[in-house]
Amino acid sequence: MSAGGAVRASAARSPIEYEDAPPEVRAVYEDIMATRKTDWVNNYWKVLAHHPPTLRRMWANAKEVMGPGALDPLTKELIYMAVSVTNACRYCIASHGAAARNKGMTAEQYTELVAIIGLANETNAHAAALDLQIDEKFR
Amino acid sequence: MSAGGAVRASAARSPIEYEDAPPEVRAVYEDIMATRKTDWVNNYWKVLAHHPPTLRRMWANAKEVMGPGALDPLTKELIYMAVSVTNACRYCIASHGAAARNKGMTAEQYTELVAIIGLANETNAHAAALDLQIDEKFR
Amino acid sequence: MSAGGAVRASAARSPIEYEDAPPEVRAVYEDIMATRKTDWVNNYWKVLAHHPPTLRRMWANAKEVMGPGALDPLTKELIYMAVSVTNACRYCIASHGAAARNKGMTAEQYTELVAIIGLANETNAHAAALDLQIDEKFR
Amino acid sequence: MSAGGAVRASAARSPIEYEDAPPEVRAVYEDIMATRKTDWVNNYWKVLAHHPPTLRRMWANAKEVMGPGALDPLTKELIYMAVSVTNACRYCIASHGAAARNKGMTAEQYTELVAIIGLANETNAHAAALDLQIDEKFR
Amino acid sequence: MSAGGAVRASAARSPIEYEDAPPEVRAVYEDIMATRKTDWVNNYWKVLAHHPPTLRRMWANAKEVMGPGALDPLTKELIYMAVSVTNACRYCIASHGAAARNKGMTAEQYTELVAIIGLANETNAHAAALDLQIDEKFR
Amino acid sequence: MSAGGAVRASAARSPIEYEDAPPEVRAVYEDIMATRKTDWVNNYWKVLAHHPPTLRRMWANAKEVMGPGALDPLTKELIYMAVSVTNACRYCIASHGAAARNKGMTAEQYTELVAIIGLANETNAHAAALDLQIDEKFR
Repeated sequence: MSAGGAVRASAARSPIEYEDAPPEVRAVYEDIMATRKTDWVNNYWKVLAHHPPTLRRMWANAKEVMGPGALDPLTKELIYMAVSVTNACRYCIASHGAAARNKGMTAEQYTELVAIIGLANETNAHAAALDLQIDEKFR
Repeated sequence: MSAGGAVRASAARSPIEYEDAPPEVRAVYEDIMATRKTDWVNNYWKVLAHHPPTLRRMWANAKEVMGPGALDPLTKELIYMAVSVTNACRYCIASHGAAARNKGMTAEQYTELVAIIGLANETNAHAAALDLQIDEKFR
Repeated sequence: MSAGGAVRASAARSPIEYEDAPPEVRAVYEDIMATRKTDWVNNYWKVLAHHPPTLRRMWANAKEVMGPGALDPLTKELIYMAVSVTNACRYCIASHGAAARNKGMTAEQYTELVAIIGLANETNAHAAALDLQIDEKFR
Repeated sequence: MSAGGAVRASAARSPIEYEDAPPEVRAVYEDIMATRKTDWVNNYWKVLAHHPPTLRRMWANAKEVMGPGALDPLTKELIYMAVSVTNACRYCIASHGAAARNKGMTAEQYTELVAIIGLANETNAHAAALDLQIDEKFR
Repeated sequence: MSAGGAVRASAARSPIEYEDAPPEVRAVYEDIMATRKTDWVNNYWKVLAHHPPTLRRMWANAKEVMGPGALDPLTKELIYMAVSVTNACRYCIASHGAAARNKGMTAEQYTELVAIIGLANETNAHAAALDLQIDEKFR
Repeated sequence: MSAGGAVRASAARSPIEYEDAPPEVRAVYEDIMATRKTDWVNNYWKVLAHHPPTLRRMWANAKEVMGPGALDPLTKELIYMAVSVTNACRYCIASHGAAARNKGMTAEQYTELVAIIGLANETNAHAAALDLQIDEKFR
């Protein structure tokens, strides 16, 4: 990449592996692996690594939002998948689908998840088409 | 509404109350109320009621998809809300937010739900911008 | 609006009525009314009128795309509504719903339109969730 | 698939061919083929077949919504495509594009369809940006 | 709000004014006002304030992402508006439209912004409909 | 393509190269290349070329909207990318990403662009979930 000039698309998008990463990036990778109890880091983080401040910022966000809380870990992934399917994000559907399965999602739960996402997208469209007025009891 | 002619917007969209509904519609309302253990029916159903076959079809879908299963009732509503927020459907956000609260969603859970929906919409956008390739381990 | 400075939101968004419009804008209004056989112009055009080149450009687009062709006028409005509902655009749903009714859309057709839009949004979501591979026969 | 455990992604997404399908699934396939006058079933149905109740439910929905009615079959497919393009659903665009062609869509009609979908997405965005107020005449 | 129970919708969504805010929230409000050189805080922050950790997290994100950088402040707001219009988010369109005007957006720039957003939504739809293949020169 | 009959998907979507183009299409290609100071035309135009009136219409739109104005050329591409990423349009992200780089977008600017697009999609979702009311000061 030339100084202050254009960036080649491929260069800015190839994953940076642990072996090739500077110390500040390795530190984030290590925290991801320790937190998630894995021995590898996925492409989302390895591509964000091209800009370490963004890698740090997004990991801090994910750690806080997806960490232990009032919702159990599997439920959090199901919510994440619902958004990702609605946005048709192939990467996130694959990534969070895998996370959901690792957190115990069964085939039956998966089926129900997909059915709910579909039904919700349908009734959202109905609501728009029919210009539904919000019921007083819901306010 | 004139035969074979135009339909006035407002006529086709005003909720049909139980008192004004024909027997076939009342039958569906009664099943909704019995299933949901409520004494009223919301605007979504009361507007679909203008076309009884659609009312029946959508209630059959909702009853099957949102009924007891491998996912608990609250989780099903959280998934529904995740889709509805992503689609910015005001009616469905209000309707399913109320349903979630009725099924026990606490303030803390609500906060986490909103945070996850926001984060997922953000990372979905990152994934598109960065043209992330799906990791082999996710296939 | 001050020269080269900020624009107040409301000023740039209030409809410009025929009576208050400069000749170049009136010319477009007249073509709209002549083409659509109406005696009034809706808010979309009257707000675009703040920038006459954009008003001209968009009317030229609409005239060409929505004019007589291989699809009949009502079908063109139904397609327009399908997009507008999917995008939950309240203004366009109202505007094109009225246009569809003026072009003969019956209550039954309206019901079927809404049902198809809902079903399509549902199966689009299923397709994303299930990562459906395109059948050879469709290529 | 192990009892109560994780489901492998690929297993739950491979199409189930007629030859490998249990009787209850074959029954639905046969009704699809008889209704659509074809000798094959596409991947959407063959993947849903992993959960026969969902296959039955969605075929019942499609049969009712896309069956004969006040809108002709081609118009129904054009509406379906308008939604699918707006949602950028590659599978559905391919599937319903093929269906539209089978129902008589000409090259000229296809061109007009694409042009309308594009224009509607554009004006929907304008309406949001300009916060257009719905005209009284549209209510 | 009752312990472990439901949260009333309105309670969790009313803005918390500075006067009524606990010290940890006031600290964030003060940093927002100091950074943005304003004497008030908008509803987005005042509603997030119901959960101080989220208020802190989102302000940290906004401060880093929207702060001084390689893109000038007005350009950052124009990008923000492009996303918000595409998602038809009324609140964000109003909020960031005001921010853009405060940062010097002229009426002419506003017109061009809206035109580009519209055109991009149109060609995005064309690209999906036509299943455009990415040119080699773009990879 | 047979007269009045179906159009094969692939035929209507293969790019028409300059060498194979009729004079009216070549004229548009030449104007594109002259305006953009390039010696080639991308797939978007070469596929639209199947319908010369649409090719002309869309080039006229793009020439007017993306031409010199109150916003500099790079800013216009950044706005275009913000929309395209939000719509997850792979073709347009690649095409306009290349255009942005050609107009001087640096790696740092690219990083900031992606961060803003992500943050905006997140806060748009928050705004919908929280049903934020527009502040008086924004009207």
